[in-house]
Amino acid sequence: MPLTPEQLAEIEAARQTPRQTLRAVSEGMEAHLYRAHPVLDHGFIRVIDYMGDDAAIVQAARVSYGAGTKHVQNDEGLIRYLMRHWHSTPFEMCEVKLHVKLPVFVARQWIRHRTANVNEYSARYSVLDREFYIPAPEQLAAQSVVNNQGRGEVLSGEEAARVLDLLKSDANRAYDHYEAMLSQDGQQGLARELARMNLPANIYTQWYWKVDLHNLFHFLRLRADPHAQYEIRVYAEAIAACVKDWVPLAYAAFEDYRMGGVTLSGKAIAVVKRMLTGETVTQETSGMSKGEWREFEGVWG
Amino acid sequence: MPLTPEQLAEIEAARQTPRQTLRAVSEGMEAHLYRAHPVLDHGFIRVIDYMGDDAAIVQAARVSYGAGTKHVQNDEGLIRYLMRHWHSTPFEMCEVKLHVKLPVFVARQWIRHRTANVNEYSARYSVLDREFYIPAPEQLAAQSVVNNQGRGEVLSGEEAARVLDLLKSDANRAYDHYEAMLSQDGQQGLARELARMNLPANIYTQWYWKVDLHNLFHFLRLRADPHAQYEIRVYAEAIAACVKDWVPLAYAAFEDYRMGGVTLSGKAIAVVKRMLTGETVTQETSGMSKGEWREFEGVWG
Amino acid sequence: MPLTPEQLAEIEAARQTPRQTLRAVSEGMEAHLYRAHPVLDHGFIRVIDYMGDDAAIVQAARVSYGAGTKHVQNDEGLIRYLMRHWHSTPFEMCEVKLHVKLPVFVARQWIRHRTANVNEYSARYSVLDREFYIPAPEQLAAQSVVNNQGRGEVLSGEEAARVLDLLKSDANRAYDHYEAMLSQDGQQGLARELARMNLPANIYTQWYWKVDLHNLFHFLRLRADPHAQYEIRVYAEAIAACVKDWVPLAYAAFEDYRMGGVTLSGKAIAVVKRMLTGETVTQETSGMSKGEWREFEGVWG
Amino acid sequence: MPLTPEQLAEIEAARQTPRQTLRAVSEGMEAHLYRAHPVLDHGFIRVIDYMGDDAAIVQAARVSYGAGTKHVQNDEGLIRYLMRHWHSTPFEMCEVKLHVKLPVFVARQWIRHRTANVNEYSARYSVLDREFYIPAPEQLAAQSVVNNQGRGEVLSGEEAARVLDLLKSDANRAYDHYEAMLSQDGQQGLARELARMNLPANIYTQWYWKVDLHNLFHFLRLRADPHAQYEIRVYAEAIAACVKDWVPLAYAAFEDYRMGGVTLSGKAIAVVKRMLTGETVTQETSGMSKGEWREFEGVWG
Repeated sequence: MPLTPEQLAEIEAARQTPRQTLRAVSEGMEAHLYRAHPVLDHGFIRVIDYMGDDAAIVQAARVSYGAGTKHVQNDEGLIRYLMRHWHSTPFEMCEVKLHVKLPVFVARQWIRHRTANVNEYSARYSVLDREFYIPAPEQLAAQSVVNNQGRGEVLSGEEAARVLDLLKSDANRAYDHYEAMLSQDGQQGLARELARMNLPANIYTQWYWKVDLHNLFHFLRLRADPHAQYEIRVYAEAIAACVKDWVPLAYAAFEDYRMGGVTLSGKAIAVVKRMLTGETVTQETSGMSKGEWREFEGVWG
Repeated sequence: MPLTPEQLAEIEAARQTPRQTLRAVSEGMEAHLYRAHPVLDHGFIRVIDYMGDDAAIVQAARVSYGAGTKHVQNDEGLIRYLMRHWHSTPFEMCEVKLHVKLPVFVARQWIRHRTANVNEYSARYSVLDREFYIPAPEQLAAQSVVNNQGRGEVLSGEEAARVLDLLKSDANRAYDHYEAMLSQDGQQGLARELARMNLPANIYTQWYWKVDLHNLFHFLRLRADPHAQYEIRVYAEAIAACVKDWVPLAYAAFEDYRMGGVTLSGKAIAVVKRMLTGETVTQETSGMSKGEWREFEGVWG
Repeated sequence: MPLTPEQLAEIEAARQTPRQTLRAVSEGMEAHLYRAHPVLDHGFIRVIDYMGDDAAIVQAARVSYGAGTKHVQNDEGLIRYLMRHWHSTPFEMCEVKLHVKLPVFVARQWIRHRTANVNEYSARYSVLDREFYIPAPEQLAAQSVVNNQGRGEVLSGEEAARVLDLLKSDANRAYDHYEAMLSQDGQQGLARELARMNLPANIYTQWYWKVDLHNLFHFLRLRADPHAQYEIRVYAEAIAACVKDWVPLAYAAFEDYRMGGVTLSGKAIAVVKRMLTGETVTQETSGMSKGEWREFEGVWG
Repeated sequence: MPLTPEQLAEIEAARQTPRQTLRAVSEGMEAHLYRAHPVLDHGFIRVIDYMGDDAAIVQAARVSYGAGTKHVQNDEGLIRYLMRHWHSTPFEMCEVKLHVKLPVFVARQWIRHRTANVNEYSARYSVLDREFYIPAPEQLAAQSVVNNQGRGEVLSGEEAARVLDLLKSDANRAYDHYEAMLSQDGQQGLARELARMNLPANIYTQWYWKVDLHNLFHFLRLRADPHAQYEIRVYAEAIAACVKDWVPLAYAAFEDYRMGGVTLSGKAIAVVKRMLTGETVTQETSGMSKGEWREFEGVWG
C-alpha cells in the first residue's frame, strides 16, 4: 500500500482548506492536488503545485498585459501553431511540482532528464522503508529476441515463480541485513550512508520533482512511448492523465503533433512521394537500411 | 508613463476576480499580483504568477506528505541551514513569473542569466513603441577613473545637457526613420525584421521571465549588488522587494548569507587570524595583491 | 573588412605551430582552426577549438575503453540509429568553440539558445568599433504580406536607396555622438556603460560561443532553416559547413533526419494513409486547419 | 582489479599514436590521457579528452583574436580576479571528458549535478559485471552521533567483520541470482531491464561524463569537501589532481578562493569586527544559533 492512513488523512486535510488567489486557476488540476495516483505496487504520483493554464501559454506568447484571453478557439489555434512550429518558450511558462514514489532503477532512468528540479529523500539522513517493487506476473517478461533493450514474451509458470521467489527473498534478506547493520543494539551501528549500499535497485525511493510544461512534454514523449520500459511508462501515463486535465488544449496539441506524430527523414519522404505516384517501393529500392525500413513500414501498418 | 489607462484598467480588472485554490498561497505576494512597479522612466516589473512559499521550501527539503508545516521557528532554522550550506534544490521548488519592461541594453545583460524562461516581445512580428530610456540628471555619470567597467562622478551642467540632448534627438530621429522605413504609404515598406536594426539600445522592450527562487537569488546577488550597473540594479531591487513579501524567511536568510555576506580566500582567513592575535598586517605582509587587499579592507571598513 | 592585417597575421601565426596531442583529431576541422569565414559585410565565424570527432560519438555511446573504433561502416549505422531515435547524449560528447562577430540584433536572437557558453565583448569595459551591418541591395526586402514575421519582395530602386541612406547616416551619426559623449577632451566624458545606449542594433559585437554538438544541431535546425531570418541564417550556414568537415557522418545523419526531415502529426499520417489507398483528400476533408494543410502540401510539393 | 590486461593494452596502444593539432595543448593533461587512476576497490577515473588550457580562459575573457597570450604573470592575475569576482563564463570555455567507473550509490549522488553530459553503460542493453564495492576496514564507520548525515568512529573488530561478511555474501548471492534469472539455459531468461533490479547499490557502473571547468569546480567544491561522503570524495580528489595538471593557474585560484575560502554571513562579519576591537564574543552575544556559532568557530580553530 503506497500510503499509510495517517498520510491519507494528512492529504485530505490539506484539501479541506481552499484559499483565495488572484492567480490563474485550472479547475481540472485542482481536483488532482495532493491526491496520490497509485503506480506499480507501492508507488504513486501526486500533484503538489502547478503554475499556469492554457491561457497562460497564450498570454506569454503574446507578452500581454491582461490576465488571460477570452476566445478559446483562437487560443487553441495559437497553441497548435506553437506546438507545430516547435515554439517551446510559451510552454515553458507553465510549471508543475510532483511528489513521486518510485523504485530506484526507475529513478535512475528518470533523473537523466536534467531540465527539472529534484529533492530526493536522503538515505544518508533517514532510514528507507521496507518496500520493494515486485513485478506483477503479466510483467515478468523474457528478454526480447529482436530488441536488445526490450522485453519479449511473458515468462511461463515455473520460471516465473522462481523469479518472483528470488526477487522477494533477496529483497527481504537485503533489508533484514540493512536493519541488522544499522542497529545500535549491542553494537555501534553502521553509518546509514554505508548501509544503504546493500539495498537492491527495486527498493522504493521518493522525490519532489518540478518541471516546466515544455520539458514535461519531452519527458512524456520519450517515457510514455511504447518503447519505454513498462515500469517508467506507467508513471508517465499517470502524469499525462493529470496534464490532460490541467492544460487540455496544450495536451491535445501534444497528442496530435508529438505522441501521435512521426518524423520522416528526407529519404523517407522521397519514398512516400514515389508511393503516392503508385510505385511499389521495397527496402532494396528505398535506399534505407533494414532497420529504417522496418520502422518506416511501422508508420503505415 | 509605463502603462496606458487601458492597460491599468485591464490589470485592476484581473485583480477583481479572486478564485479558490488548494495550492500554497502567499498573502504577501497576492498583494503584488499583476500590479506594475515602475522602474526607470518607462519600465516596470509585474508579478504575473508564483508557485510556493516559505513552507514549500521546507516541505520539499523534507520530501513530506503534508501540505505544509506548522512551526515557523523550525522552518526558519531549517531555511537558514539550507542557505548556509548551499543546499540549493529546496529553493528551486519555488517559482515566479514576471512581466518586465526594460531598455534593450539592460535586457542584453539580463539574458546572460540562462537558467530562466523567457518570452520576449517580437520586433519581427510587431512594431515597437516610441519609448526610450533617458537617464535622470543624477544618473548621467562620467566614466570611473578607478573601475574600468563602472561610472564615476555625475556630469556637470553643460556637458550633461549636451549628452541628454544627443540621446533624445538621436532616439527620436532613429524612431522617425524606423517609422518612415516601415511605412507602406506610397512605398512597399521595409520588413520589420530589418527596420528594427536602426533602433538604439535604449529603446524599451518587454518580456515574460520565469525563474526559480534559487536562480533568482543568484540573479539578485549579482544584479542588486552595488557594483552592478545602476540601470539593471533598480530592476533587481524592485524584484527583491516583492520576493521579501513572497518568502520572508528565505529572503532574510538570503540577505544575511548572500547580500550581506562575504567570501574570504584562504589567504584572507590567514590574515584575519593574524589580526585577531593583535598583529598589524599590511598589504606587503599579507601575501595579497593590491586589488585583493583593497577589497579585503573594504570588508571591515 | 572583418579583420585587420594585424589580426590576420596573428591568426596565421597561430596556425604555424602545430603541436602533438594524444586526443582525437579531426583533420577536416584542423583546416578551419582560427581562420575567419566572412559572414555579412563585417562579420565572421572562426573555429577556436573543438573536442571529439565521429568516432568519439560512437565511443561514448558504447562507453568503451579504447580510443576509438575501426569500422567506419558500423559507426555510420550506429550514428544514424542514434540520430533517428533521438538519442542525444552521445552527440553531446563533442564540443566546439567559436569566435563570432555579428550585428547586435542577430546576437539577440542567437542568445536565446541558452544551452551554450558565451563570453561577449564588453561595451562597459571597452569602446566598440565603428562597424555596422548595412544590408546588400538584394537583401533589402519588404514586409511579407503572407507571413507576419518574414520578408517579401526586394525593395525597388528609389525606396531601397532611401532606406540604405537612412541606415548609413543614422548609424554614422549615432557613432559620432557616441564618440563625442565618451570624449574626455575638454569635458568629463560619459561612462561607457551609458554611452553605448545610443548605438543602433546593427552595430557589430563579438563573442566566444561554445556549444556541444547536440545543441549545435538544434541551433542549426532552427537557424539554417529557410524560415529563419536571413541575417542569422548565413551564420548558421557558415557554421554548418565547418561541422560537415568536422564530423561528416554525424552531419550526414543530421541532414537526412533533421534538415531534410519532416514531422507529421497524427492527423497528417492518417491523411497520407488515405492518399496511399488512392483517395483524393482536400483541406476540407483532411481535418486540418488551412495553415496546417498548406504546410502539409508543402512537404510533397 | 579495475581493468583487464586487454583494456590496459588498448589504453597504452591509444597513447602510442600522437597526432598533430593546431589547438591549445596542455602538456600536463596529455600525460593523463586515457590512463586509469584507480579509485576505491574497482573504480577509476580516466581523462578521455579535454578542451582549452589556462591561456584559453584568458583568451575568452578578452574575446581576443590571437591563439593565446604570452605573459603568464598577467594571466595569473586576471584568472585570480575572475575567480574572486565570480566571473564564471571564461572558466566555462574549458571542457573535460572523463570515463568513470563507480558504485551505483555514488553515481546516484554524482548525477545530481545536472550541468554535465552523461552516457552511462546500459543494464537494459548489456549484462553488468560481478564487481561490488566493499569498504576497506578503515572506512567501515559507525553512524555519526553529531551529524545526521555523516559517519563517526570506525567500527570495532567483530562488528566490522560481520558487516563485511553481510555486504560480500549479499552482493554475491544477488549476482548469482541475477545470472540465474538471465540464463537462457533450459528456460526463457528474464529480460535484462528487469533482472537488474535485483542488484544492490554497491555494484559498479560506468559512464562517460563531460563537464566544463566552471561546473567541474562547483562539483569539486562540494564533493572534495570534508563533509562529502568518503566514497565520492575520493573520486573528486582524483579528478582534482588531473585538473591541477591541466590548468595550474585556474586550479590555484580555485584552491585559494573556493576550497580554502569561507563565506561569512553579515552577522559573522559583524562579530569579527567586534573581535578585532578586542571584544570577547560568545555564542550568546553573537546573535548566531548554536549551529552557526560552531561553524563560525571552526573557521578560526
